[in-house]
Amino acid sequence: MTAERIARLRALMKERKIDAYLVPTDDFHGSEYVGEYFKARKFITGFTGSAGTALIMEDMAGLWTDGRYFIQAERQIQGSGVTLFKMGEPGVPTIHEFLEQNLKKGQCLGFDGRTVMACETEELQEKMNRIGASIHSDEDLIGEIWEERPQLSCEPVWELEERWSGKSRTDKIKEIRAQMEKEGADVYLLSSLEGIAWLLNIRGNDIHTCPVVLSFLMMTKEKILLFANEKAFSVQIQENLAKDGVELRPYGEIYEAAASIEKDQTVILDKKCVNGHLVSCIPEDVRILDRENLTELPKSIKNPVEVENMKAAHIRDGVAVTKFICWLKKHVGKETITEISAAEKLYEFRSQQEHFLGNSFDPIISYGEHAAMNHYSATPETDAAIEAEGFLLADTGGHYLEGTTDITRTIAMGKTTEEQKQMFTAVLRGTLNLAAAKFLYGCTGWSLDYLARGPLWEMGKDFKHGTGHGVGYVLSVHEGPNGFHFRPARKCAIFEEGMITSDEPGYYVEGEYGIRHENLIVCKKAEKNSFGQFLCFEHLTMVPFDLDAVLPEQMSEREKALLNAYHGEVYRKISPYLDPEEKEWLKEATREI
Amino acid sequence: MTAERIARLRALMKERKIDAYLVPTDDFHGSEYVGEYFKARKFITGFTGSAGTALIMEDMAGLWTDGRYFIQAERQIQGSGVTLFKMGEPGVPTIHEFLEQNLKKGQCLGFDGRTVMACETEELQEKMNRIGASIHSDEDLIGEIWEERPQLSCEPVWELEERWSGKSRTDKIKEIRAQMEKEGADVYLLSSLEGIAWLLNIRGNDIHTCPVVLSFLMMTKEKILLFANEKAFSVQIQENLAKDGVELRPYGEIYEAAASIEKDQTVILDKKCVNGHLVSCIPEDVRILDRENLTELPKSIKNPVEVENMKAAHIRDGVAVTKFICWLKKHVGKETITEISAAEKLYEFRSQQEHFLGNSFDPIISYGEHAAMNHYSATPETDAAIEAEGFLLADTGGHYLEGTTDITRTIAMGKTTEEQKQMFTAVLRGTLNLAAAKFLYGCTGWSLDYLARGPLWEMGKDFKHGTGHGVGYVLSVHEGPNGFHFRPARKCAIFEEGMITSDEPGYYVEGEYGIRHENLIVCKKAEKNSFGQFLCFEHLTMVPFDLDAVLPEQMSEREKALLNAYHGEVYRKISPYLDPEEKEWLKEATREI
Repeated sequence: MTAERIARLRALMKERKIDAYLVPTDDFHGSEYVGEYFKARKFITGFTGSAGTALIMEDMAGLWTDGRYFIQAERQIQGSGVTLFKMGEPGVPTIHEFLEQNLKKGQCLGFDGRTVMACETEELQEKMNRIGASIHSDEDLIGEIWEERPQLSCEPVWELEERWSGKSRTDKIKEIRAQMEKEGADVYLLSSLEGIAWLLNIRGNDIHTCPVVLSFLMMTKEKILLFANEKAFSVQIQENLAKDGVELRPYGEIYEAAASIEKDQTVILDKKCVNGHLVSCIPEDVRILDRENLTELPKSIKNPVEVENMKAAHIRDGVAVTKFICWLKKHVGKETITEISAAEKLYEFRSQQEHFLGNSFDPIISYGEHAAMNHYSATPETDAAIEAEGFLLADTGGHYLEGTTDITRTIAMGKTTEEQKQMFTAVLRGTLNLAAAKFLYGCTGWSLDYLARGPLWEMGKDFKHGTGHGVGYVLSVHEGPNGFHFRPARKCAIFEEGMITSDEPGYYVEGEYGIRHENLIVCKKAEKNSFGQFLCFEHLTMVPFDLDAVLPEQMSEREKALLNAYHGEVYRKISPYLDPEEKEWLKEATREI
Repeated sequence: MTAERIARLRALMKERKIDAYLVPTDDFHGSEYVGEYFKARKFITGFTGSAGTALIMEDMAGLWTDGRYFIQAERQIQGSGVTLFKMGEPGVPTIHEFLEQNLKKGQCLGFDGRTVMACETEELQEKMNRIGASIHSDEDLIGEIWEERPQLSCEPVWELEERWSGKSRTDKIKEIRAQMEKEGADVYLLSSLEGIAWLLNIRGNDIHTCPVVLSFLMMTKEKILLFANEKAFSVQIQENLAKDGVELRPYGEIYEAAASIEKDQTVILDKKCVNGHLVSCIPEDVRILDRENLTELPKSIKNPVEVENMKAAHIRDGVAVTKFICWLKKHVGKETITEISAAEKLYEFRSQQEHFLGNSFDPIISYGEHAAMNHYSATPETDAAIEAEGFLLADTGGHYLEGTTDITRTIAMGKTTEEQKQMFTAVLRGTLNLAAAKFLYGCTGWSLDYLARGPLWEMGKDFKHGTGHGVGYVLSVHEGPNGFHFRPARKCAIFEEGMITSDEPGYYVEGEYGIRHENLIVCKKAEKNSFGQFLCFEHLTMVPFDLDAVLPEQMSEREKALLNAYHGEVYRKISPYLDPEEKEWLKEATREI
């Protein structure tokens, strides 16, 4: 099927005189995950992973993806004639390098300019100029050959009440306008779906597990235009938005609106998440200020109401996950439990909690060697039975009206080896030490990452993912600009009070086992003195770490005290919601070591 | 005197229709320290510190400087009519903000365009455009009123033999040309004095304690032009340079050379350290690639010969500093020793070492409360007598043919308080832990800084300076791009094998005392495995930390082991060069705790 689709694309390319056609994963908004309508790269290659770019030329078809997806991609593109380019492997060119080396002078690169963000469009333009090639970016060729393309999503929009959001949309708009004023901007063009949802206190369901509304927003000092499908909005919500000065316009009219910005005005936008076609619609005599998305920082700094709500959400979620672990420990070996059935059971526990809205991402429940694959997600073909030995890794999360959770626990299902316990303990030391950091204002996640990674680095070991990411409030479970990383290429903002970040070191042995311990931690103020404002973190996640795999003798006194204090808090907060049997289990599971 | 000079400047400004005149500290090369000829800001304000900018308008004269110099600047500008703007203090505008707020439409900002680097010139240009003011940057008004201005320095140039530099200039030139090729550049414009000295293996004495040669360099695929005063070069050196394709041209001709770059050529340069006037001389139809100074990274990665030489230099320097501390401990309280006389004594010990060339910076020997001032430098008026109590802080360094040293020791001259010992121990834990880091390739100084700062941050304390900087090889004692910092605004390169960095946490109590422990550490390879290449550090500095102020009970077992291992190495390497009495003292000073 893939081969036949590629053949039809090539015929169309020939007709339009396009020599190479680029098919990225992005929607028109640079979203991390995208709706079904936008899955053009999956359509043309058969590869279903969340990241990857296809390139089709007359005599080649290539798929670029990263280490998380090598195995899956190889399987899914087998026999299709598509070549896999393993990003980051030695000797493998990036897609830009490949284009520079393989496109010839006078040839033409094509893509749908709405699916490539403006900063990448500019890079491509510069590179093509250098080799004398041209760009056609107004061709959605996939759209032309995709007969049964899904409709653009149009799920009902709902409003997040102020008791959940903690701040009205008018207050948020006022703050963004103050930023526009400071930057000297007349117009703000926002196309980040999370940014729009946050700013207007609206939620939807246009992306799987990410409750956003497919839309663009254009704002001036006087007006706010929201470009979205009117059908998704109830009359009541339309009235509420109108009352706050938000006018609805059809989704597709954003391009004309950009084209009609008046001469000599200044537009502020973020070229990393506004698509190239949209930027190209802006008249030439308009000044463009390319700045970090204005909503990103305020969205990441949770207000006091959001922080308190998040604590409540984490108690609900902690109860569900604690019940799940207790159930697992008691039932394993006695009945058939698989990765998929375990995920269903956990969903059931979460569903029993008040204000639960759904998963915040597809659950990663991976047993044994599956846990060594970072982005493993069980399918009916891979679904493994969970035995009474080794580790089960459960990385899951939920959306509640009070916020979003993201938790990983590694659970000893029975006997584990000495090496496994050693590594479990080393990773746990990292989780605890990072959460216990005290630091001066001005510090970023680059400077704290070592606390989590140090115990592994000292042993000459590592984990190949970031140590932490920001978490949205009933929005994407991954958000910036806060995070914990050690590579300077990854973004790490200065920590502010109210930022919520995951703390999730891990350790993985291919073909054997995987360990990850993940808590969400909120940044809060410690003392202020002549040196400045000190900050620290507080655990939000309230679920025990499995003492069955801890080697206390490999922990310092301080680390043991940190674990005991955390477990004490878990017991105090979670036990009131458990039945007597679960409560007794939790008492033992949170015992002092 | 200052007032009279300012009056003459104002008269000249009026004549030339300049409303505000900017006098920065920089020479024509963006050097950290500058030669006497360039001290225009000192001439016009009387302030002698190493950093600061003056701004003169019809009705105001301002000096902007940073926290290191507030006290000194206030004293030196007293009664001159100059206002001190304390940079970084709340409510104090930056000089750019001040200009934006105080220059009016139609007014003119003047400065000597050779003393403002191109990136700042562009920023100023943009700001002045915004307020409708103009810029005149070809006016050296200070030069016109400075009657007894010192000559441009023209000290004899010498060559650093390959046994010291480890790499010939032809090899270095080949590497830079490969970088030019890669970037697609036809011309490389280099004006960093350290960069030129490194590239050509030449040294001079045109800046106090920094052995560079006042010069510019312009390089194409075929030619290398060195713009410098011919009189500084012996016939032999001129011949040697010519043999390697380096042609000498008069220093001032660089501007004409830049103006004669041919149309459609591509010039690579670093706007942060090439002056704005020079960049403005380049014809408009020449393409400019603004890139990090190409010599900075290769200069910072010391080659194996340089690393071995540096170890030798640190043994010579360690012997001198150890003898000095032993002498201090034995003579304090028995004879008059002052900060200045102690510095002279240390210079005497260093002078006795083979291959010693001179101080690598002006010694900071500060006693008692003086040590709380980070950049204190004793003058005859402030010179304090050293008593047999409290701390003496000695931050000093030397140039040797085998390299450059930079060491700080805090020495208990007698009784110290419990609090002082606690803080001495906390800072020492930081120094030891940072030097003992093991980390994966890709890690920067941002990610390791916490190791040094953590013991203080946990106590709610801090030190207000970076934790470490790169060190040149018989060049500037401060160089980039490596360093240890936690603020993202400070540069921190990915660590490479061979980089040498200072490790110097501290603690300061204003009006009371100051502590700093500084070792130079060299980055070297640890194991390489499936996770990647691990790196670690090795101490270069070989001088004991004062056990008289250490509280062993406040150190972990690991920290005590680190200190004992270091002291064992110091004894093994330094004791062979001491007399019996000193040797016995060192034995005790490096005892296990």
